[in-house]
Amino acid sequence: MKTNKKVKNTAILLLHCQDQKGIVASVTDFLHKNGGNIISLREHVDQQTNHFFMRVEWELKEFSIPEEKINEYFETMLGTKLQLSWELHFSSTVPRMAIFVSKYSHCLFDVLSRYESGEWKVKIPVIISNHDKFRHIGERYNIPYHYMPLNKNNKREVEAEQYHLLKKHNVDFVVLARYMQILSEEFTKKLPNKIINIHHSSLPAFAGAKPYEGAHERGVKLIGATGHYVTPDLDAGPIIYQDVISISHNDSISDMKRKGKDIEKIVFANAIWSHFNHKIITYQNKTVIFN
Amino acid sequence: MKTNKKVKNTAILLLHCQDQKGIVASVTDFLHKNGGNIISLREHVDQQTNHFFMRVEWELKEFSIPEEKINEYFETMLGTKLQLSWELHFSSTVPRMAIFVSKYSHCLFDVLSRYESGEWKVKIPVIISNHDKFRHIGERYNIPYHYMPLNKNNKREVEAEQYHLLKKHNVDFVVLARYMQILSEEFTKKLPNKIINIHHSSLPAFAGAKPYEGAHERGVKLIGATGHYVTPDLDAGPIIYQDVISISHNDSISDMKRKGKDIEKIVFANAIWSHFNHKIITYQNKTVIFN
Amino acid sequence: MKTNKKVKNTAILLLHCQDQKGIVASVTDFLHKNGGNIISLREHVDQQTNHFFMRVEWELKEFSIPEEKINEYFETMLGTKLQLSWELHFSSTVPRMAIFVSKYSHCLFDVLSRYESGEWKVKIPVIISNHDKFRHIGERYNIPYHYMPLNKNNKREVEAEQYHLLKKHNVDFVVLARYMQILSEEFTKKLPNKIINIHHSSLPAFAGAKPYEGAHERGVKLIGATGHYVTPDLDAGPIIYQDVISISHNDSISDMKRKGKDIEKIVFANAIWSHFNHKIITYQNKTVIFN
Amino acid sequence: MKTNKKVKNTAILLLHCQDQKGIVASVTDFLHKNGGNIISLREHVDQQTNHFFMRVEWELKEFSIPEEKINEYFETMLGTKLQLSWELHFSSTVPRMAIFVSKYSHCLFDVLSRYESGEWKVKIPVIISNHDKFRHIGERYNIPYHYMPLNKNNKREVEAEQYHLLKKHNVDFVVLARYMQILSEEFTKKLPNKIINIHHSSLPAFAGAKPYEGAHERGVKLIGATGHYVTPDLDAGPIIYQDVISISHNDSISDMKRKGKDIEKIVFANAIWSHFNHKIITYQNKTVIFN
Repeated sequence: MKTNKKVKNTAILLLHCQDQKGIVASVTDFLHKNGGNIISLREHVDQQTNHFFMRVEWELKEFSIPEEKINEYFETMLGTKLQLSWELHFSSTVPRMAIFVSKYSHCLFDVLSRYESGEWKVKIPVIISNHDKFRHIGERYNIPYHYMPLNKNNKREVEAEQYHLLKKHNVDFVVLARYMQILSEEFTKKLPNKIINIHHSSLPAFAGAKPYEGAHERGVKLIGATGHYVTPDLDAGPIIYQDVISISHNDSISDMKRKGKDIEKIVFANAIWSHFNHKIITYQNKTVIFN
Repeated sequence: MKTNKKVKNTAILLLHCQDQKGIVASVTDFLHKNGGNIISLREHVDQQTNHFFMRVEWELKEFSIPEEKINEYFETMLGTKLQLSWELHFSSTVPRMAIFVSKYSHCLFDVLSRYESGEWKVKIPVIISNHDKFRHIGERYNIPYHYMPLNKNNKREVEAEQYHLLKKHNVDFVVLARYMQILSEEFTKKLPNKIINIHHSSLPAFAGAKPYEGAHERGVKLIGATGHYVTPDLDAGPIIYQDVISISHNDSISDMKRKGKDIEKIVFANAIWSHFNHKIITYQNKTVIFN
Repeated sequence: MKTNKKVKNTAILLLHCQDQKGIVASVTDFLHKNGGNIISLREHVDQQTNHFFMRVEWELKEFSIPEEKINEYFETMLGTKLQLSWELHFSSTVPRMAIFVSKYSHCLFDVLSRYESGEWKVKIPVIISNHDKFRHIGERYNIPYHYMPLNKNNKREVEAEQYHLLKKHNVDFVVLARYMQILSEEFTKKLPNKIINIHHSSLPAFAGAKPYEGAHERGVKLIGATGHYVTPDLDAGPIIYQDVISISHNDSISDMKRKGKDIEKIVFANAIWSHFNHKIITYQNKTVIFN
Repeated sequence: MKTNKKVKNTAILLLHCQDQKGIVASVTDFLHKNGGNIISLREHVDQQTNHFFMRVEWELKEFSIPEEKINEYFETMLGTKLQLSWELHFSSTVPRMAIFVSKYSHCLFDVLSRYESGEWKVKIPVIISNHDKFRHIGERYNIPYHYMPLNKNNKREVEAEQYHLLKKHNVDFVVLARYMQILSEEFTKKLPNKIINIHHSSLPAFAGAKPYEGAHERGVKLIGATGHYVTPDLDAGPIIYQDVISISHNDSISDMKRKGKDIEKIVFANAIWSHFNHKIITYQNKTVIFN
């Protein structure tokens, strides 16, 4: 294991499988023998399901297997034998992220600020909205903005068009920056663990459309936000990140909404960051996050 | 308004009513004209219900109305006119607190540590449990310990006996230090806003008996605790205090329980402290807390 | 006291004085007798200095004293007698806020996002920077952007010009959005409690230019941010708001800087919000904040 | 890698060395070939110092090297070659912890509550104090209590006696539960990374004897606590755990002390727990904590 402050090209392997003896030894031996210098290694065993998870990142500089052959070699030498599920990523690939938005700007602006400042190494090839409100924002950043209004009857065709746009722009993942529409089962199933939503409560409390109203009604002393992957079950997908802030009787619903915006945008950003840095493995509707 | 570092005798008035003009002026004028030096004053208006809340504390030293007459004078001069609901407390009265406990010790030990060290100015005249496990703890602190086992058939009579004990010991309020029995509607209705429970989740998430199991199953990234008043609706009473801590995939259910104990005891203590310092007004199943 | 959900025009009085009997009664009586409906009232007595602080907000609708006469009447009837220091503000006045910035964008972008979305009811008449880097941002928002480079010799004249600009634009207060220049004693003394800085540590730890480097060197497990008023003593002015986040050995200095940006912008925004909503009284280098 | 819910006997290896290729592969290969089933593995590379850290825990059940030989075998096969510093621990060994205390009870009571309830698997063979105040607590728990008063002249001999007691009781580590005496350089050097202190501020802010007074004077909005190893430099040893809570102008010094007690005892407990569960590696006055 040898590190360098200006690491340029690394490979990241996310794997999981039934727990068994010798997995770490096998994988690290495979990397070591082929000249791979491990930058970081994290593993986890879920003791209830007896399932094993691992994230390993190594430098490609002196790695003897060419990038395009790693998948094949890994499959042949380890994948089949250990019955692994895995994903391989390269740090040199810039992920392509689509934004869906409706009428609230705070998450949209926060995401775009991180993009504009270079804090996030992503490309944003497309913004999709059911409102025309932020067209000028798309123009400001030179990002194609598609206004796709929805009504009772056109959801199926609009979603088909949305999916077509995502494919056309080679989108790797989608972030719902307070997109106030429920995606169909059909749509979400085509993009498993590829759609990140920000829900404005600490799930599972107050799922659904009006969490701040629910929180005010119940008289809670904390409000929160949850970044999660979208699945066909509304607000029930794997949770990536959560945080809360304290409130008091003194906070009206509008105070809660104002304060909530800050926690929403920070939680949303954390969830997205973990995703495009390949820190997350999803299994049985839960996440393992190697931050 | 005039304060003194070693305030000894103060009166505390907690009041609420339909909002109307001039309440603060009327109350402060009443206190001022009778020589009462206000130590602290907090008010709140709930804009949804248009309801007014106030806590005011003043020194009794130069107050011209005798302690035992304050209620009568206040009623005559302000209470009826302004249609106030109010409570009057005196700082010189040491509250009498009963503890109910089952088999977990962390909240019990924490409460007793605060009592033993003098951090809390309360008397603990009685401990009641459905297990005999902590009899030696009662003996250690010289507090009568009543082992009152419950089964399917004896709840009504046991609760009657418990209530009798509370009356006999002049108990002002009850704290459920992880008491794993559901109190009957009859019992809770006799002690409104006088029973404080610690629930081991951030309510309304994971109400019921096994919140950590539920949290683990859902894969949440935060676990919490809620201190609340007990009402006939299980885990649905007015929330006094809540807090959370972060967890990760790395935390098993037993890790969550271990970490949860710390947050439970701190939240429980905060809720109890606010209660016996007369900081809380309850209205429509919510709390206004003037900390 | 009578509230209305759509309160339009209110007056806010921030006052402090040596503690004395009857202040609250006098002030509320003054407002009540002139038809002022109190929206909120908060008071505080510092028991060490025996100093009294109060914030009261009331509706102007039925208040019989005209806005431009309130100061005079209040002075005549209460101010002199009680030897009060006070400020009067009107909710209808939109505060004018200047931004100073250097090369980091996260606080700048966050402030402008709140401005653009209408979350903050402020005007931003001018942006001043010692770098030309964000000229296009000024243009984007149609805000005059003044590039005013500093060197060893020109500080006095540049600051004179900056002060002139602030006067010309009727600026009410200044926010330093990671402005990496030390303001002179002369400049800061002209704007007491009118300049808000964000310092990227939990002061007093790691004052000075490189707090994250200091935090990493010391091996702390928390990093923080502090929003404070600027005084002639570097990083020693009255603290308005602070928060922290947990870090671990796993966080390099660059990770700390990345994570720190989020806490910086939230803390900065909270401090600014409290200021322009007239929640803050400053006394003896400390703040009383009636949030 | 194979786990079991009721893991009984495991070995834990904490190691660090100059970073080099193949360490993880070498260590996991060594364990795997000798039948060791890895329960958990965590590694870290400090990119500034280019130093490597690792914690690995494995089951002893089918491990072919006898417990008492593991050190020798590991030294021979890996330690010398890779120039490792390491410690080996066994989960079956119950650590022996001495408590030093002065006049505050909250940390003492909290530690003893965890001990009494079985939450912590430790032995407490001795309590040492410079006051006689808690003698009855020692008696309550059947723990020898040594009252060893200190004055200007007897520090050297008292510390010699204290050290003698620690040796006599085979103490593994010492916890200073608000022990209000400064340990000499000589004493601390004999117990490196074996003495855990709780400091009642978020170090490095407010080191020294009166942190709450300092925090109040400075007008901070957060107070904290720091669990750290004791070194000859006062309050400057490696930090293990820190946390903070929010305070306001409303909190007097005595409020801060009251609230501070809760954060102190939780931070203290977290630091101690990480230590006796062998989660900590110390290097260059900083900690790597594999929680």
